[in-house]
Amino acid sequence: MSKEVYTNWVTTHVRHDKTETKADAVASEFPLTIVLNQEEFATIVCTPTNLMEMVIGFLASEGIILLRKEIKTIEIDSTRGFADVELYKQLQPDDLNPSQRFIGSCCGKSRQFYFKSDVQTARTIMQSVSMTTKQCMALMATLQEQSNHFKQTGGVHNAALCTVDNLLEIRTDIGRHNTLDKLNGYMLEHQLSVNDKVIVFSGRLSSEVLLKISKMRIGIIISASAPTDLALKLADELGITAIGFTRDNKMNVYTHPERITDLEG
Amino acid sequence: MSKEVYTNWVTTHVRHDKTETKADAVASEFPLTIVLNQEEFATIVCTPTNLMEMVIGFLASEGIILLRKEIKTIEIDSTRGFADVELYKQLQPDDLNPSQRFIGSCCGKSRQFYFKSDVQTARTIMQSVSMTTKQCMALMATLQEQSNHFKQTGGVHNAALCTVDNLLEIRTDIGRHNTLDKLNGYMLEHQLSVNDKVIVFSGRLSSEVLLKISKMRIGIIISASAPTDLALKLADELGITAIGFTRDNKMNVYTHPERITDLEG
Repeated sequence: MSKEVYTNWVTTHVRHDKTETKADAVASEFPLTIVLNQEEFATIVCTPTNLMEMVIGFLASEGIILLRKEIKTIEIDSTRGFADVELYKQLQPDDLNPSQRFIGSCCGKSRQFYFKSDVQTARTIMQSVSMTTKQCMALMATLQEQSNHFKQTGGVHNAALCTVDNLLEIRTDIGRHNTLDKLNGYMLEHQLSVNDKVIVFSGRLSSEVLLKISKMRIGIIISASAPTDLALKLADELGITAIGFTRDNKMNVYTHPERITDLEG
Repeated sequence: MSKEVYTNWVTTHVRHDKTETKADAVASEFPLTIVLNQEEFATIVCTPTNLMEMVIGFLASEGIILLRKEIKTIEIDSTRGFADVELYKQLQPDDLNPSQRFIGSCCGKSRQFYFKSDVQTARTIMQSVSMTTKQCMALMATLQEQSNHFKQTGGVHNAALCTVDNLLEIRTDIGRHNTLDKLNGYMLEHQLSVNDKVIVFSGRLSSEVLLKISKMRIGIIISASAPTDLALKLADELGITAIGFTRDNKMNVYTHPERITDLEG
């Protein structure tokens, strides 16, 4: 168990009528402030692992960069919790306000986007990857097996970058969306092709998660948990296959079932 | 099951080798942008229930108001997802930037606060409420019983305002922290005394949750889930009794056990 992911805490355990005090592993939580060309950009509360990847993935997700090479330098001060990023380009005032509300037409499809930066960066996925229900379930079983030691203490999420047959990389974080930024940063760092990749994910499918998946150009997201309606509307519009409640040989396919080859009907 | 909390979605259910397509209830997710004296303040993604309470609680938590009467008008446009708030006072430029990073002294206690607005509003809790382990477990059992119908579809959190013997009000949201803002707004609306109140909570204890509890002046938070180390450091410093993993006649007391009267040692 990585010491960055967990910290020991002296805890009083109550079990029925018995009390025992002993050290317990609890999830680490760390605030990291990203400073972009000397301007404060955002503070991310996260698990302090793979911070460089997380910063790269976050900036890509916010539409600040498209490619890794747009970043001149990144310096991470993990004592004070700062990531100093210098870009080659100058920032526009709008770049520094990514969570400004987007006002779409009242009844158009754009209604599902609520932040301006998403309108610029979220794209319809043309990825043609396909797989079977058995492959989905096998990937989830592998994720759960490999992240089993984390589950004992709870409180963290896991996401894995996969091909349809293999888990390639797992990232862990207290923030669901951070696991995806870490994987996105990893892909950008290594200039990996997204064409044959899918994501397996322990967390809930919220709109924020689906937007990040779309920005990574991923076509299939397989989650162990529940979706929200807004996430599914986005998945539907953006051409993403959203799968939830994947556990114990069961799964629910919510959108774009055409990528799952062995569904009936 | 409230129609604001859930939406129906046509879903393909895979169970071993069988496939069946039918409507499924999924959690509603709704973006609400708070406009404060005509300036965009924040966008909250939430379950669209008790929105008025949520806005009041959120503004209190962000340090914008102390009392309900500081708000002149609130108009909620639930079609477009906007809450227009007029305050009696003018806002300062700093008020509109609540998530600006706070830079404390390097090794002082202030290190645990990472947002400027928290430094101004989080306070050490002097609340003298106390209870037994059995009372903690009974409140959690009641919360789980009363929110049982929500659990079938998953994806939402519940928080309850309680006395040591009774659940008073339950609030539900896809965002953990929103359930607390809704309860805070309820307390401010009804000018309830906090002196004899505790909170029972389904979600994880993150730093954000503990900061909200401190701003509500609550002394005991009883959670069903895991804590983070930063949340526990804050609870320790702010004088809050933080209890986690409360289920099946078990619980872990992490900080300030003096409010739980029947612990040994």
